[in-house]
Amino acid sequence: MFHSLPARLSQQLSFIVECDKLKNVLRQSKVMFDDRRENSAEHSWHLALIAMTLAEYAKTPIDVAKVMKLCLVHDLVEIYCGDVFVYDDKAREAQMELEHAAAEKLFSLLPPDQAKEFTALWLEFENKQTPESQFAGAVDRLEPILANLKNNGGTWIQHGIRKEQVLAKVAGATLAAPEIAKAIETLLNEFEWPSVTIKNSL
Amino acid sequence: MFHSLPARLSQQLSFIVECDKLKNVLRQSKVMFDDRRENSAEHSWHLALIAMTLAEYAKTPIDVAKVMKLCLVHDLVEIYCGDVFVYDDKAREAQMELEHAAAEKLFSLLPPDQAKEFTALWLEFENKQTPESQFAGAVDRLEPILANLKNNGGTWIQHGIRKEQVLAKVAGATLAAPEIAKAIETLLNEFEWPSVTIKNSL
Repeated sequence: MFHSLPARLSQQLSFIVECDKLKNVLRQSKVMFDDRRENSAEHSWHLALIAMTLAEYAKTPIDVAKVMKLCLVHDLVEIYCGDVFVYDDKAREAQMELEHAAAEKLFSLLPPDQAKEFTALWLEFENKQTPESQFAGAVDRLEPILANLKNNGGTWIQHGIRKEQVLAKVAGATLAAPEIAKAIETLLNEFEWPSVTIKNSL
Repeated sequence: MFHSLPARLSQQLSFIVECDKLKNVLRQSKVMFDDRRENSAEHSWHLALIAMTLAEYAKTPIDVAKVMKLCLVHDLVEIYCGDVFVYDDKAREAQMELEHAAAEKLFSLLPPDQAKEFTALWLEFENKQTPESQFAGAVDRLEPILANLKNNGGTWIQHGIRKEQVLAKVAGATLAAPEIAKAIETLLNEFEWPSVTIKNSL
């Protein structure tokens, strides 16, 4: 598409165009103020904005710029292998191999130095070994919880997810931000969960 | 919604939830790989990602973290006053007052220190007096151009916009990234513009 441009810029623009496909990857959660499923691009925007807004709650000092970068790239591999529901543990295991192949395919559109940089960012988010990736992971857990609370239970009700399952997912994922973890717990306890258990659809 | 949480966190979460409305603000341009208009949230994600990818082309050294923040917040005021087409100069003038009122309304959801910080970021983007806001502005011009090229002319054809109009808008907006400006000019010159001028719809 960009053969008439300098090679490096051509590669970068090809990557930028390919990334547009993330706008077509649908997540389970709906947006908060409309009856449609959220896509992974707008979700990634929201995470980066939330990270900016809540950075002060990081347990360990964090590089906010790094957290924003992690949020912006963390779902890009879904362009080739789609989003997997956070409570679908079986599908998530199978997904890992696919995501590594997707990362290789997508990031190799970039010049080699940037392919390395973006791959490292994606792996950092996946591996959750740094304060920044752990904080980004906490934010990634918070956003759909806010959406489900706003949507009267949203995907929890739809898929028969119980409060205990949500709390279990949150506990490990929000250690990097204890005050956010506590707030989520409070909100989940306040939420009026259905007294009749709906069949878990997974 | 968050009365049971600490006041500061409650304000921040209220802001985060309100910002979700940006996912419902539609722009003129369509996404590149589907027949639907892009929303301002996914557009903002794309800008921040493009800024990360193309930062090396900034004429003056830039703080990439600042550019990403500008990209993430630059359209938030549209939650209350919508998006205005870049070639609709008349509507854009009328929009300015509305946007200032919208900024006041939205950012005052935050604790005062953050209201000040986010307002300053939005004004910095609007005023284009810093290398970071000028680079973010260049990226904001690039993205819909790539989308229109991908969509066989997209909004240019739809609204009867001529190449000269696009070039004029680009020239001023991309001074902060001369190589990107040159690339856009090349791509616009290569594009097969319709020989019959369609009536400008504005």
